[in-house]
Amino acid sequence: MQRTLTPVLQPPYYAVIFTSIHTPNHEGYDEMGAKMAQLTTEQKGFMGIEGARNEDGMGITVCYWKTEEDIRNWKKNEEHLLAQQQGKEKWYEQYSIRICKVERAYEF
Amino acid sequence: MQRTLTPVLQPPYYAVIFTSIHTPNHEGYDEMGAKMAQLTTEQKGFMGIEGARNEDGMGITVCYWKTEEDIRNWKKNEEHLLAQQQGKEKWYEQYSIRICKVERAYEF
Repeated sequence: MQRTLTPVLQPPYYAVIFTSIHTPNHEGYDEMGAKMAQLTTEQKGFMGIEGARNEDGMGITVCYWKTEEDIRNWKKNEEHLLAQQQGKEKWYEQYSIRICKVERAYEF
Repeated sequence: MQRTLTPVLQPPYYAVIFTSIHTPNHEGYDEMGAKMAQLTTEQKGFMGIEGARNEDGMGITVCYWKTEEDIRNWKKNEEHLLAQQQGKEKWYEQYSIRICKVERAYEF
């Protein structure tokens, strides 16, 4: 994922916070992660994506969307569903997803 | 920061998403980061904190709070204000802060 911040823009909009603990099995993960990151950019309502991961396997990805409907559509995208399935089977020990309404935002 | 996920709990509550690009100067950062992470846990309304950072300097920290007032109180905490000032002077090239209302949450 790129080393750039998504502009904060004018709220309201939505953020999906995906926090995860990775398994030691990273086979195929980087390719799939890059593919999914690229695919999100092509979805309706996509506003930006940011991600970071510690060496110990703790990861956070935040994706920004215009509406809740855009988030629902992305969740049920077919390629994304396959990636989710593989994620549960191989790459993630545990993960959490929070759908949030961005109410205020500022930057330095 | 710990390699553990914060339980998703029952929304609504609040998330503060802090995304940053670090400067190459990490002097004193780890100590201050640990001190601030500890201090947040002692604040009223604190629900959890999660963080990850890439080797290239991209970092994300998410902190969860019961109310917006709890977030405002933490923002103006005196020790935190000093840390914010040092962050701007030394450790961060750029950062963004988004205050969000968590509307839905689930975990695997």
